[in-house]
Amino acid sequence: MENKLTQHQSKTIVFLPILYVVWSDRTLSNQERLTFKSFIKAIDWLDEEEKSFLFSRLEPDSPPSRTEMEDWYFTIRRFIHEEQDFESLSAMGIAILIGQDKELSQTLDLDRIQNQLKKLEIELGIIGQSAIYLFKSEHPTVTTTHSTEKVFEVEELAKFLEAGQGPIIERVKKIISRSSFAYVDPSDLNFYRNQVLEWCKIIADEGLGKIGYPKEVGGDGDMEAYFSVMETLSYHDLSMVIKFGVQFGLWGMSIYSLGTSRHHKKYLPSIGTLDLPGCFAMTETNHGSNVRGIETTATYHHKDNSFVIHTPHEKARKEYIGNAAMHGKMATVFAKLIIDEKDYGVSAFVVPLRDDKGKLWPGVSIEDCGRKMGLNGVDNGLISFDQVVIPREEMLDRFSSVNDRGEFESPIASDNRRFFTMLGTLVGGRIGIPRSALSAAKSGLAITIKYSDTRRQFGPEGGEEVPILNYRMHQRRLMPWLAKTYAGQFAMQYMTQRFLDRKEEEMQEIEAMAAGLKAYVTWNTTALLQECREACGGKGYLSENRIDALKNDTDIYTTFEGDNTVLMQLVAKSRLGAYREQFENMNFFTILNYVASKTKTSLTEKNPLIVRNVDEAHLLDPDFHRNAFEYREKDVLDSAARRLRRLIGDGMDPFDAFNVCQHHLVNVGKSYIERLVLEQFNAKVKEVEDRSFGPVLKKLYDLFALSLIEENKGWYLEQGYVEGVKTKAIRKMINQLCWEIRKDAVPLVEAFGIPDSCLAAPIAFGR
Amino acid sequence: MENKLTQHQSKTIVFLPILYVVWSDRTLSNQERLTFKSFIKAIDWLDEEEKSFLFSRLEPDSPPSRTEMEDWYFTIRRFIHEEQDFESLSAMGIAILIGQDKELSQTLDLDRIQNQLKKLEIELGIIGQSAIYLFKSEHPTVTTTHSTEKVFEVEELAKFLEAGQGPIIERVKKIISRSSFAYVDPSDLNFYRNQVLEWCKIIADEGLGKIGYPKEVGGDGDMEAYFSVMETLSYHDLSMVIKFGVQFGLWGMSIYSLGTSRHHKKYLPSIGTLDLPGCFAMTETNHGSNVRGIETTATYHHKDNSFVIHTPHEKARKEYIGNAAMHGKMATVFAKLIIDEKDYGVSAFVVPLRDDKGKLWPGVSIEDCGRKMGLNGVDNGLISFDQVVIPREEMLDRFSSVNDRGEFESPIASDNRRFFTMLGTLVGGRIGIPRSALSAAKSGLAITIKYSDTRRQFGPEGGEEVPILNYRMHQRRLMPWLAKTYAGQFAMQYMTQRFLDRKEEEMQEIEAMAAGLKAYVTWNTTALLQECREACGGKGYLSENRIDALKNDTDIYTTFEGDNTVLMQLVAKSRLGAYREQFENMNFFTILNYVASKTKTSLTEKNPLIVRNVDEAHLLDPDFHRNAFEYREKDVLDSAARRLRRLIGDGMDPFDAFNVCQHHLVNVGKSYIERLVLEQFNAKVKEVEDRSFGPVLKKLYDLFALSLIEENKGWYLEQGYVEGVKTKAIRKMINQLCWEIRKDAVPLVEAFGIPDSCLAAPIAFGR
Repeated sequence: MENKLTQHQSKTIVFLPILYVVWSDRTLSNQERLTFKSFIKAIDWLDEEEKSFLFSRLEPDSPPSRTEMEDWYFTIRRFIHEEQDFESLSAMGIAILIGQDKELSQTLDLDRIQNQLKKLEIELGIIGQSAIYLFKSEHPTVTTTHSTEKVFEVEELAKFLEAGQGPIIERVKKIISRSSFAYVDPSDLNFYRNQVLEWCKIIADEGLGKIGYPKEVGGDGDMEAYFSVMETLSYHDLSMVIKFGVQFGLWGMSIYSLGTSRHHKKYLPSIGTLDLPGCFAMTETNHGSNVRGIETTATYHHKDNSFVIHTPHEKARKEYIGNAAMHGKMATVFAKLIIDEKDYGVSAFVVPLRDDKGKLWPGVSIEDCGRKMGLNGVDNGLISFDQVVIPREEMLDRFSSVNDRGEFESPIASDNRRFFTMLGTLVGGRIGIPRSALSAAKSGLAITIKYSDTRRQFGPEGGEEVPILNYRMHQRRLMPWLAKTYAGQFAMQYMTQRFLDRKEEEMQEIEAMAAGLKAYVTWNTTALLQECREACGGKGYLSENRIDALKNDTDIYTTFEGDNTVLMQLVAKSRLGAYREQFENMNFFTILNYVASKTKTSLTEKNPLIVRNVDEAHLLDPDFHRNAFEYREKDVLDSAARRLRRLIGDGMDPFDAFNVCQHHLVNVGKSYIERLVLEQFNAKVKEVEDRSFGPVLKKLYDLFALSLIEENKGWYLEQGYVEGVKTKAIRKMINQLCWEIRKDAVPLVEAFGIPDSCLAAPIAFGR
Repeated sequence: MENKLTQHQSKTIVFLPILYVVWSDRTLSNQERLTFKSFIKAIDWLDEEEKSFLFSRLEPDSPPSRTEMEDWYFTIRRFIHEEQDFESLSAMGIAILIGQDKELSQTLDLDRIQNQLKKLEIELGIIGQSAIYLFKSEHPTVTTTHSTEKVFEVEELAKFLEAGQGPIIERVKKIISRSSFAYVDPSDLNFYRNQVLEWCKIIADEGLGKIGYPKEVGGDGDMEAYFSVMETLSYHDLSMVIKFGVQFGLWGMSIYSLGTSRHHKKYLPSIGTLDLPGCFAMTETNHGSNVRGIETTATYHHKDNSFVIHTPHEKARKEYIGNAAMHGKMATVFAKLIIDEKDYGVSAFVVPLRDDKGKLWPGVSIEDCGRKMGLNGVDNGLISFDQVVIPREEMLDRFSSVNDRGEFESPIASDNRRFFTMLGTLVGGRIGIPRSALSAAKSGLAITIKYSDTRRQFGPEGGEEVPILNYRMHQRRLMPWLAKTYAGQFAMQYMTQRFLDRKEEEMQEIEAMAAGLKAYVTWNTTALLQECREACGGKGYLSENRIDALKNDTDIYTTFEGDNTVLMQLVAKSRLGAYREQFENMNFFTILNYVASKTKTSLTEKNPLIVRNVDEAHLLDPDFHRNAFEYREKDVLDSAARRLRRLIGDGMDPFDAFNVCQHHLVNVGKSYIERLVLEQFNAKVKEVEDRSFGPVLKKLYDLFALSLIEENKGWYLEQGYVEGVKTKAIRKMINQLCWEIRKDAVPLVEAFGIPDSCLAAPIAFGR
């Protein structure tokens, strides 16, 4: 009976497609066999011999052999054309029967047979036309044919992203593209750190270190350019960027912001040329986030008008100090000022660490922090001072000083207020870090998206493999991050402008914004690079593809310049305090004016027409987005204020009350920042409506807005701001936007303008 | 007028506490000044001189000096006792007035004055008693006094977690605690890789490499012990674990599972002793996830009964192959078998790589994969074969062979089915990896929680700093991960038992479960270790504290042994196919029986009484949890099936349809796995109700269950399964559980029983 099905003239051939599909790369379940058998038993157009032959092909213990399956396949292919479309396997079976024996087929009621067979198909669970594809050697699918398109001028968008900083960005790109900037193996700490120092020297020689310093000391007085330099350098090695930031930003800017003109003249010229490498020594082992609590002392000696800098115990050493382990010669040291045994709070002092030959200064001990998760090109160290004497002039005296009579003087009476005012002048660091993080995020995205556009895995039956960027899940992983990166870019441009144009009375707002954006952007960068690593699979794990370094180097960005969780709470406290100063005081507990003044203004109403509105025009309407973001910002803030007021009013210690609400407070900070980012993104979209990249940018903006609403959909649903029907529509719209933006994804990452030599990852170049 | 407020006999002293609080470390806003001034103007119990003095103390341009503020503070402290409680600053002001001048106070209507002052306080936004704390030098708060307690026997819980594997676990712990296992600097690849090999040799000498092999070849036939060894080794260097897994698991078990007794006898004894280091060469550059598509060929030569192994082009090289770059002498190579130009699908072959002296075998080329993000102690390489000839006997012939007549033979006709059956025998690898991941997660948690229990930052005004683990946000970050880690432990114990007891007909379920749990546990580990890094701040970034290595070494766990996203889709397809075989076939598109058979069973009803039930007893009821998890699992699966059926039924290519639903399918997999994990956790809790650690385990279980419901609250709300009032109650309950479990957190990580020398991180030991 072996080949009856295909070789003899027989009505059984009508079952061929169904049999083939049922056996195709699987075993027959008992249920399927019984269904099939009782069907055959019941029909009246097969004779007993035919029926028992079919039964024999349904035995799980003797499945069709490989050869038999091949025979079946070729028989089917012989009788149907590649282009023929069938609505079911039954229809295909009928066509084969006719093809093999037209005469026989004319003796049968083919319509009746086909109807019966269709019932069998349904009972077996075979779906519509799907199985037909088994017999087509190749066919185009939507997934296969989707690919990168160029609908806008990449150069034009790139120029727009530069926001007027094109010349300095170009200058920096040329430098880091030189062969002397080829990446090095980071494994030998000594070698790597010296290479990083070399790179920084070249950059200083090009006049870029001092670019933010005032003209009087040889700089260009151009802080905007300074940020652009830091951002552009961040397309290259990030240890180099942090070393650059420590030297010219933290060390140099602390002299500039906390010192007065004699310090500027004395130190800034040689800091700007890197002839005087130095450190910013604030953090102590026991006091990272709670920096007000540092224990290093600077005790004034009236006898010789000097300060004695001293580390009282091991856990009061300055820790994680960049430039300390190998290269730093001096440091801005934060210490409690003591005069006549009275504590005058934290001030800053310039203290020597090493002499010109690199020998440690008497009384100074330095321990290497050793290997870190990343940034191993930066020589972090622990500094300890044993009664190190410095002259009175080395106190950075813009905000506090000791006069000729040995008395403390300050324009700001409160120690806390003075300390936070000092920190406030250093807010630039909190702008440089997220801008650097954004560059790292862009590199990660560019590598991953370019790779995903060419890397192929899987495909339709018999068809070519498909670029993995065509998979919906892959798009879901990457496209929202692309949108968030563009959003971050515009937000940081706005932040930078607000900082450059700052007025005294805006400082509290600007500090809160900088703290919040630093946390927001750096958290995003960490999560984005994790997604990139996984999206690149094993290739993403190889160091040559650079996601390793990008991820590990930026991992600490969420901690330094302020722990993100602490920062978000500060932002919340600032929002609660309605623009009061010194919001960095964690023990903020005296007054919660916000409640008194703000609960009077009613929240945006929930419109019953809106909560169920799923029109495409509505979902893509910036007014809807703005309203949703503002509603969340206000409601989260308002409820936090009410909750705190109730808890404290009920007699809870304010410290406990703030602790109970900590999670809530972080959300206050996040929702404020997200509203701000949305606003800036939308402003940019409006600005470029008529440009070639306008529509693509609008799509990215839509994706950003809807992604964030979706991330918070639990909250929105909880509040009754939207209903389930709307969140489902939003999910669908996000999928659609991801699918559409996929076509623009490669041009969108090319518009970042990252030099090829910096991107470097072989997978980004099809290698 | 300087000191009138405190030194002269004056009614103005009643304002002292309010004035002090208003000026305390902040500036006066214009609004506050105006409020204060108009209040003073209006009252009738101050004379003009007193009023104008008060006005003078409200000038933003001349704030009180530091000395004056101190005077105010000491005056207040002079008249009130530490223990005195005041309901407001006004009450305190009155008390001070009485204290300073009882006579004067008797001339005044103190009740009226106090009532007026209270109104001022409210207008200024001063809350209840909070400001009073400014004048108390120290006071206990709930947050300050919360700390680690021991309510159960750590040893008892530790023993329970061992699940009967105590002796082998102890044996392994003793080995990895030896001084020869001290961690080494991973920077020099050569040195590190050789050290890792040395460690593996010691482990092999202890008889632990062959422990899972059958007794006939010198093993113990104890696969359960093999998994316990791998899990326990994972408290130490993870490169060592992966090297161990490559040698004894992948290489050895491929010989065992795909070969027959002559291969076992020939190879397993020397593999088990590590005398024959080898590789598992499946993945190719162009085919990672879509492994069915590999292009390496094994062409049969009839003339001399041999196979020629060949790499057709560079992108068909075997990539990421562990043990290849330095130490491997042979490899199990997966290649397409070609006989007489006909392709018989993928089979496995034993192929030499190097001779006994370590020289490459003729025709074999190997390139080092170089530095990786982690696992740098493993020598991954790229292998290329140029017409390498091997005898017929070196084909691993359990599932396919070439007979004496040079004909292909196999008990499984379909190439696909055979291939996935072969892979199915290797499912053990997908159990070893998540168990190793769990150990890494435990190390990360132990380090982070022990550090957070001693690390102090911030505190109430005037009080001591507080352990950071007392902060709610910190608890929120870590406690759910502690619960998820315990949950993972029990789930993997169950998984292991199912695997050990497996019957043929359960294989499809077991494979799906292993794929899903591998993805679930390794994703969790990556996210958990990221949280640990950030929760430890700068200390978490230093390599000495080991989160660096734990995080970077395990990062690839989400990719190897199957990309997690691909695995979750396979799980979904298996669920859709209702336990059909060969579910690994990504082009699964023939039949969707699930819909036909399963939609008839109705889903769990949404009970209107349940959706708003916020009783504590209900929220902590395992029936509620089980119902919620099962409802989600069924609904997500059912809607995915309906969606696919509709799309395909409407004529969409099945490949496109599966792509459209990809995101949905991943959720099918996740919700299935999460239900399974919940079930196993709950079973364990029931088992130990009466043990000393029973109640703590129940709390962890509750936190696990509610955390997952909260993570999916958007979905639950969307479905109307719960209402906002309930999700809010769940959030509150989670906060409460985190707060309570914090007390048990240190004992709970101690119960993992990680040897101190392996944990190693200084911060875990208060250093």
